[in-house]
Amino acid sequence: MQLAAMRTNVGGTAAAVFDGTGWATIATAADVTALLARPDWRRLADAALTSGDRITAEDAQLTNPLHAPAKIVCCGLNYADHIEETGRETPEFPTLFAKFADTLTGPDDDILVTGSSAIDWEAELAVVIGAPIRSGDRTEAQGAIFGYTIANDVSMRDWQSRTLQWFQGKAFDRTTPVGPVVVTADEFDPAAGAEISCLVGDELMQHSDTGRMVFDAATLVSYISGFTALGPGDLVLTGTPGGVGVGREPRRYLADGDVLITRIAGIGELRNRILTKERHNS
Amino acid sequence: MQLAAMRTNVGGTAAAVFDGTGWATIATAADVTALLARPDWRRLADAALTSGDRITAEDAQLTNPLHAPAKIVCCGLNYADHIEETGRETPEFPTLFAKFADTLTGPDDDILVTGSSAIDWEAELAVVIGAPIRSGDRTEAQGAIFGYTIANDVSMRDWQSRTLQWFQGKAFDRTTPVGPVVVTADEFDPAAGAEISCLVGDELMQHSDTGRMVFDAATLVSYISGFTALGPGDLVLTGTPGGVGVGREPRRYLADGDVLITRIAGIGELRNRILTKERHNS
Repeated sequence: MQLAAMRTNVGGTAAAVFDGTGWATIATAADVTALLARPDWRRLADAALTSGDRITAEDAQLTNPLHAPAKIVCCGLNYADHIEETGRETPEFPTLFAKFADTLTGPDDDILVTGSSAIDWEAELAVVIGAPIRSGDRTEAQGAIFGYTIANDVSMRDWQSRTLQWFQGKAFDRTTPVGPVVVTADEFDPAAGAEISCLVGDELMQHSDTGRMVFDAATLVSYISGFTALGPGDLVLTGTPGGVGVGREPRRYLADGDVLITRIAGIGELRNRILTKERHNS
Repeated sequence: MQLAAMRTNVGGTAAAVFDGTGWATIATAADVTALLARPDWRRLADAALTSGDRITAEDAQLTNPLHAPAKIVCCGLNYADHIEETGRETPEFPTLFAKFADTLTGPDDDILVTGSSAIDWEAELAVVIGAPIRSGDRTEAQGAIFGYTIANDVSMRDWQSRTLQWFQGKAFDRTTPVGPVVVTADEFDPAAGAEISCLVGDELMQHSDTGRMVFDAATLVSYISGFTALGPGDLVLTGTPGGVGVGREPRRYLADGDVLITRIAGIGELRNRILTKERHNS
């Protein structure tokens, strides 16, 4: 099943489910976060699919499917080639940091960053939690995973490297695009290896597959649940492969007007324009 | 004005305001987070003070006044003596990391930590935001500060030092006590130097004053607001002075049954028992 959130013609958003050709809206939930908070989410989705109304894939204006996760936990240093480009050793434990819900933005939203001259990309698979989990083992963690989506952990390297803690370089409001859809876990297995890539315009910057993670999705969810409970709608970002701008020779950062494209085969594509100046007409 | 949240005799909590001898409850808000979300919070508090009903300070069962901040941003390395005991240099920028609301607990709650053998204390002044602020200067930041409370950023040093990022050692659920009251900014000025201390049982471990911060409260709020908007009920933890367990010779950590006392003159005291094993009768 593929779920998303789309803009409605009355100015709000609604959750929606894809039938293979078009989207059926679930008017009682504003997005996938709200849908997953309801124990009867599957009944609501199935009911939407049996209704007749559809919005075509072309007409659907998809927005951030998960606008308000209570917790967003991110893993750094989780692909061997990225660990190598940072000059670090393969870690024994996952390197984790947090984001707030305000950091997220939609799959085709412009990303406005002022005050940084080192805006970098980090294509990532994001895990969407569907059931409460606390101190769960790997099997329980697998069962708590609702599905997967795409994120780009856009990072302001100048801020990130000001201090020992990365948070401030990764917490600029509305800079982490998420979406466009959440694919349920029965239809997507990251361990089987889905192609993940990041482009700036037509230039391929990152290209790997999700089977190459040091700590896979279920291992990360299990590990995190050992110190903090996760619940429906929470997000775990699983780290980025090699090819980030700060790891290139010479270094390469995003400039005003660049289009950042983030793809995972089987989920879809984020397409975000980078802006470094406020625009009054865009 | 002093605000708090207290347990009600119907199993919930209510915000409350202190009149100098007793507490007047504000039944329409469950705690200070909920109260601050209302633009008319001061009218509600004043109305409660003009009502006749009081709960004596002895009878009031105060709980975490801020159960659900959207954002909790913490500063590390913000007192010279603590920076020295960690062996680091005085930083040019604030070192920041995040916590989730689930990490908080009440001013006299037991703190249960399983899975760590290096539980340490960090007495801190916490800033409570009262008005929205985004990219504000120091003056605007001062105006956005609603008040101050006490926190102890209890840290699992073994987890904290597993990787480069501190988050996992500081994000165990229900391990950061907060309270007991929020003192409004017109009645408390941290720059004037309030005594801050931390005791384990009757042994004094930390003793400093809040005037010795490298980055003061308004500077921190201004800096953070430069990348992420802060709003009513959000918390900024301002760092801990010297004397933490990991900085002592020999190192010293909290043990099962230890009582952790965290004091700031003019605000009050947190008193939390540390448990490292689940207790069925306690």
